Amino acid sequence: MAEFIVKFVSFGKTVSVPAGTDLVTAAIRCGIVLSAACGGEGVCGKCKVIVNKGKVKTEASRFISAAESKKGMVLACQTLVEGNLEVTVPKGSLEPHEGVSHASEDFTKGIILARESLFRPSPLARKICVDVHHPTADDNTGDLDRICDALKPRADSLHISTRLSNVKHLSEVLRESDYKITATLAYKDGSLEILAFEPGDTSGANYGFAFDIGTTTVVGQLINLNTREILGTRISFNRQAAYGSDVITRIIYASEASGLEELNTAIIENMNEIIMDLAVKNSVSLGDINAIVCAGNMTMMHLLLKIDPSNIRKAPYVPTTSVFPAMHPPEIRIETNSKGIISFLPGVSTYIGGDIVSGILACGLSEEEGLSLLIDIGTNGEIVLGNREWMIGAAASAGPAFEGSGLSCGMKAVNGAIQKVSIGADFNVAYSTIGGDKPRGICGSGYIDLLCHMLKCGVIAKDGKINANLRSERIRKIDNVREFVIAYKKEAAAGRDIVINEDDIENLKRSKGAIYSAMIALLNKVGKGVADVKKVYLAGGFGNYLNIENSVFIGLLPDIDRGIYEFIGNSSLAGARMSLLSHEAFDKAYDIYKKITYLDLSSEPNYMDEYIAALFFPHTDIGRFPSVRS
Amino acid sequence: MAEFIVKFVSFGKTVSVPAGTDLVTAAIRCGIVLSAACGGEGVCGKCKVIVNKGKVKTEASRFISAAESKKGMVLACQTLVEGNLEVTVPKGSLEPHEGVSHASEDFTKGIILARESLFRPSPLARKICVDVHHPTADDNTGDLDRICDALKPRADSLHISTRLSNVKHLSEVLRESDYKITATLAYKDGSLEILAFEPGDTSGANYGFAFDIGTTTVVGQLINLNTREILGTRISFNRQAAYGSDVITRIIYASEASGLEELNTAIIENMNEIIMDLAVKNSVSLGDINAIVCAGNMTMMHLLLKIDPSNIRKAPYVPTTSVFPAMHPPEIRIETNSKGIISFLPGVSTYIGGDIVSGILACGLSEEEGLSLLIDIGTNGEIVLGNREWMIGAAASAGPAFEGSGLSCGMKAVNGAIQKVSIGADFNVAYSTIGGDKPRGICGSGYIDLLCHMLKCGVIAKDGKINANLRSERIRKIDNVREFVIAYKKEAAAGRDIVINEDDIENLKRSKGAIYSAMIALLNKVGKGVADVKKVYLAGGFGNYLNIENSVFIGLLPDIDRGIYEFIGNSSLAGARMSLLSHEAFDKAYDIYKKITYLDLSSEPNYMDEYIAALFFPHTDIGRFPSVRS
Repeated sequence: MAEFIVKFVSFGKTVSVPAGTDLVTAAIRCGIVLSAACGGEGVCGKCKVIVNKGKVKTEASRFISAAESKKGMVLACQTLVEGNLEVTVPKGSLEPHEGVSHASEDFTKGIILARESLFRPSPLARKICVDVHHPTADDNTGDLDRICDALKPRADSLHISTRLSNVKHLSEVLRESDYKITATLAYKDGSLEILAFEPGDTSGANYGFAFDIGTTTVVGQLINLNTREILGTRISFNRQAAYGSDVITRIIYASEASGLEELNTAIIENMNEIIMDLAVKNSVSLGDINAIVCAGNMTMMHLLLKIDPSNIRKAPYVPTTSVFPAMHPPEIRIETNSKGIISFLPGVSTYIGGDIVSGILACGLSEEEGLSLLIDIGTNGEIVLGNREWMIGAAASAGPAFEGSGLSCGMKAVNGAIQKVSIGADFNVAYSTIGGDKPRGICGSGYIDLLCHMLKCGVIAKDGKINANLRSERIRKIDNVREFVIAYKKEAAAGRDIVINEDDIENLKRSKGAIYSAMIALLNKVGKGVADVKKVYLAGGFGNYLNIENSVFIGLLPDIDRGIYEFIGNSSLAGARMSLLSHEAFDKAYDIYKKITYLDLSSEPNYMDEYIAALFFPHTDIGRFPSVRS
Repeated sequence: MAEFIVKFVSFGKTVSVPAGTDLVTAAIRCGIVLSAACGGEGVCGKCKVIVNKGKVKTEASRFISAAESKKGMVLACQTLVEGNLEVTVPKGSLEPHEGVSHASEDFTKGIILARESLFRPSPLARKICVDVHHPTADDNTGDLDRICDALKPRADSLHISTRLSNVKHLSEVLRESDYKITATLAYKDGSLEILAFEPGDTSGANYGFAFDIGTTTVVGQLINLNTREILGTRISFNRQAAYGSDVITRIIYASEASGLEELNTAIIENMNEIIMDLAVKNSVSLGDINAIVCAGNMTMMHLLLKIDPSNIRKAPYVPTTSVFPAMHPPEIRIETNSKGIISFLPGVSTYIGGDIVSGILACGLSEEEGLSLLIDIGTNGEIVLGNREWMIGAAASAGPAFEGSGLSCGMKAVNGAIQKVSIGADFNVAYSTIGGDKPRGICGSGYIDLLCHMLKCGVIAKDGKINANLRSERIRKIDNVREFVIAYKKEAAAGRDIVINEDDIENLKRSKGAIYSAMIALLNKVGKGVADVKKVYLAGGFGNYLNIENSVFIGLLPDIDRGIYEFIGNSSLAGARMSLLSHEAFDKAYDIYKKITYLDLSSEPNYMDEYIAALFFPHTDIGRFPSVRS
């Protein structure tokens, strides 16, 4: 088949692709990740590019105006290469790799810090330098035997084993280093494995990575395993986004010819980039990165390990596996110490993944006497209720509205996102954006403030409909849909007015209703009420900046003592870090995995009634929200 | 470099080798193993071949007569290829692969059989077929999780793990087989590993191999792991013999450029040949051979695993390791199920290898209350003394005399070897050979009988000197060395008279002295005497046919109740088989390994005196042998 050259001019990057390749794929091939929330279906309109030169085959799109079309603008996902091309990518079409401000930011304070100190320091990979007894006529056991004897007092385990490759030239290494040798050991399947031997004392250089592999963002953290110091954290958007913003789109893509391979490569490159970046910044050699722990949802784990994910999206929605074997990094093309270890936190089911297990480990819900709730609001909303005796978990079909997806001006919590909003008596709007930039859109916490204030000043009613009788130029009707303007084009960086319309409100109402009613369904299932809950842990990047008062006001969170709410940030990352720093924590994750019961909400008889009752602001039954003046 | 073609005419085999290759190596390359006891030094004269055509560079040898030289006979090890050749190999120059009669024969009766039945059947690899619960909305954990749940009641272990490659397409396999699946599990480092999944019920096909890797012979045994039935045993000479008959020669060879590679390839080919042969004969598919257990001495284990053996021959004689990690067969090029497991019995030190640990496991010495001795007479003589509380082991520098090596007419216990001898009053000699063939030489048990009868009828004195005053044509002096003729050229197949000379007797006396005095040294060390010994286990191929009465008479074995002597045959193989059939037995081998103390005889203050006192028939102190009439 003919191959053509595509040049992405602003990047100075060039790629050769077969005729018929779409431009999203061509861009990916040279590391340029275009926004493609819809997974290349042409329905989100986010992957606009300009074809300066060359022949393409493209579909007309309602997202491209006549003027834009004249300039050569096309939707990359709807455009196929038919000749050598020169393409310009507008900044707004890029999946932002940088500029993530606080979303998914790490939390190393308060409760998380206290939890971390509970576990005995015993990093997943340890380096121990030993002076080995010289052999004598009376002590002429094997070199490896004498090394193990020297290690045992410092590494209690029934079995110490190692791979053959580590043994072959051990005699030479031992003698060259005058019987001083450093062993790197790791806990694996309940026993201790010697990962590597190095001559002399190299025990000072022992590093690890904790990873949270999210559908939207990937966060990696470089840690000194000896000092427990966090050397750096790097967040980047999951490159798989180029193949679809949600897990279902990606699972479908994975079933295509080389789909799984491409998705796998995308996330591996993501991780390697983060590893390389932090290693270079901290002058850490890749060969000294001996252990990695990853937490992620079930689909992300399958794609990361290139395990067939197809049954995750078919009833009854089962993963191939919810536990993942520890392995050496080269098995999945991770570029750290090839003899090192990479481990994965276990999940429970398709909807309660390793990220949630990790979150429970991080907050300590599974060890408390009183009843606690963990609410993780991300692309979905996962909720776990329980205590040290039992746990029950559910996934609310909340959709990604609180991550800004599917809303007319929604965006992720990155620079330029409106994160806080208030509306004055005269319907004047005050807002602040992440990074202080001109507004480009609205993120989840901004929408919550917005809904709260629109309710308070009567812009919307309890059913979410916009009051058409109010006299404000901010309230208007476009294409028969009522909307409220937050920022006008002139003050925005979006190239248009930033608004919220009735469709958006409906969407947000369903999301908050799904989360609230899932919580109630779990409580009902065990015969408890919101008053019985002693602690609510709010997790997820979103969680850090949620205004609790406003969240209660719109009926997203229950109307209980605000003092029991606790932000725990990216608890998935925190749990991974704890597991990296203590194998006792890692073992505890397996206890959690075994203890959680998954509740399928769709087969709960009263769930649908609860859900429908929650489709009001704050709720049909206002008695549940006594603090919300009606 | 120029390459030449060497054709071995009687085999119809051809090989291309670089100019300058010696003919032993050229033969090895096409699977023809020539006798080369001296390791290619030109001093044993056993690798005679006839060069029919072509140019060679060769050294004259005292082993080649003028007449032979005229026919083109050369020593293969002293002959380098300098052109295309046609070579004939006389049958006598071949390392016999077949025709081994009883040496290393397996023992599956008496005590070994009783011991085997003591261990709970739990083969190293097990196949379990399970009907896995179909997933439902209420039970939607991962496929692997449900499989493990189904396996757990039948395979109790804290951890069940598997490799990533087994998981990737598990969902598909499970659904295609309608949720009936067979898992192959193995014990590895204290936990249970799932080696493979197969659709449907394949649990009927589960086979294993036990191997005894000796310096001289390699024995493999194919076993049905479900029924515990031994399907076949095959013995072949260790192909490494082409590089030298003893371990020291081979260790030296291993230090040369590609020496370790060649020695490793030789033993791996040996094993693969045995595996293939028995598998074909029993219609067993190689893919159904799931577990292998090997026992062997320390040097054999190093060469098998391609581990640097160099320090084994340098004081203080330490192996690189005496424990060996379990692995998958392809790691060492063994051609059974690539997902299977191959395990190795641990050794204690350079001189007490896994073969001895295996022997102790097989006879049960380590579990007895009374004091027992294990004597393994092979290329060396290893002795272990102890009971269930403690064990102490030593290696006698007995040399390979009792295997026929280094003696003028010595040979291994194969067809044609004189194995039993008696001498009449008129010095007439009666003998029997293995296989009933015409005699080619004398093996160990023949020498013992011979020494005993020569003593009894006064051919030799207590110091081993031949009585020159006896009137018999069988007693003569050649090249100033006295000798006694057992079989004349005309009745033999050796092409010469079969004799024993004073050098041979001296050699044998040192061997028996070394074994006896080692035994006494061990007893002295723990303050015991021969009378305290409740059981003596005689192991080794040699052991099966040893005449105990005669052995006591010459002072090889102590003069105690004959009823406590027990032949256990190839106990190394038996222990490997027990470990293959029960992981409890395998674990016990590790207990044995930890319990044995190695005694270095050369640093025992009184050992040398004991040894010198034993250099008489039966002993300087005749009081120790009351039953031997003097």
